[in-house]
Amino acid sequence: MSLVRVHNFSVSLDGFGAGDGQQLDAPFGHAGHRLMEWAFPTRTFTRMGFHGDGPGSVGVDEAFASRWATDIGVEIMGRNKFGPQRGPWADEEWRGWWGEDPPFHTPVIVLTHHPRPTLEMDGGTTFHFVDAQPAEALVRARELAGGRDIRIGGGTNTVRQFLAADLIDEMHIVVVPILLGRGARLWDGLEGLDERFRIEPTTSPSGVVHLSFARRR
Amino acid sequence: MSLVRVHNFSVSLDGFGAGDGQQLDAPFGHAGHRLMEWAFPTRTFTRMGFHGDGPGSVGVDEAFASRWATDIGVEIMGRNKFGPQRGPWADEEWRGWWGEDPPFHTPVIVLTHHPRPTLEMDGGTTFHFVDAQPAEALVRARELAGGRDIRIGGGTNTVRQFLAADLIDEMHIVVVPILLGRGARLWDGLEGLDERFRIEPTTSPSGVVHLSFARRR
Repeated sequence: MSLVRVHNFSVSLDGFGAGDGQQLDAPFGHAGHRLMEWAFPTRTFTRMGFHGDGPGSVGVDEAFASRWATDIGVEIMGRNKFGPQRGPWADEEWRGWWGEDPPFHTPVIVLTHHPRPTLEMDGGTTFHFVDAQPAEALVRARELAGGRDIRIGGGTNTVRQFLAADLIDEMHIVVVPILLGRGARLWDGLEGLDERFRIEPTTSPSGVVHLSFARRR
Repeated sequence: MSLVRVHNFSVSLDGFGAGDGQQLDAPFGHAGHRLMEWAFPTRTFTRMGFHGDGPGSVGVDEAFASRWATDIGVEIMGRNKFGPQRGPWADEEWRGWWGEDPPFHTPVIVLTHHPRPTLEMDGGTTFHFVDAQPAEALVRARELAGGRDIRIGGGTNTVRQFLAADLIDEMHIVVVPILLGRGARLWDGLEGLDERFRIEPTTSPSGVVHLSFARRR
């Protein structure tokens, strides 16, 4: 059975997965780049174009970061990760933040109440726009995944909804030692989540704490 | 100049320093003992009577736990740490949770809007009941501290108020991997706190993460 996984999902020490005021030139709102700065120097993110031309770091941050694509056959993301527009599509010209060759290289299900035609991008990424609850979206994702695993790509509300529905098998959360004070809270309404997961923390020289959540068997 | 310090202050992964429903038989509310379980086996807490008669553990949890009394001349605590009563004292017979020989062995300032006579306990602990804002309380604390440091002992709201007033120099916070979902939030309203502190995480075999906050100079 394919697993449902979360990777490289950062939260502030006070539990925000994104800041306040998300918009076109600030996808993480007032958080800026601070939630993802640990990741940019890694080999995985360097190869996605985030950090110059070097080989990228290969320490513990890379060890975690690199797992995001392994054995993944499909991603599910929320509308707000795909783009800054809300409500009916004012502009179907928007094709995501990532240019014509997005880094996913698999089918991607974009959850939205406003479906639109499937978008075939370069490099194997295809965006499917689906109006569905988490459990229904997983049925569609498994059809597209070719037996491989399913990544829940965010944003914050999407990850929280899948956790609340108890649909996630493993999860890599990165606690960044900043206090955002406002934005989208990951942990709200998840009392007792620790009863369903073994949680293992690992520190990094970059200052973040990697938390590995593995479903208790 | 004496320092203002916080030690052994535990929060859940979702940032609660105590659960909901604090009362006489549940000082941490629905959190029960879960926020402090990491500490009970340590030598420091074993000697306070929390964990049988053994010598107590001496690993990283003890290394952090043992610092709480070193060079401390006075503690400041909130009324809610001293006891479960709220409002005017219905019962001045209440002398704290800790029996006749509390573990503090220094003067202790109890912040309350309802002052009452000073309580001299065994072993050097004296409870002074003071109606004051954080900065005023520190003035009184320095008079009592004999040149040594000042510990802010909690509870959650008291620590948060001293942080908000930028009165804390160093802080040891323990992140316990549980999700309480409700209770008293430590981090609310502290946006940008990380600009004032260097924050160093350390993991422990017990599963918690020790966070050391040191004021940036």
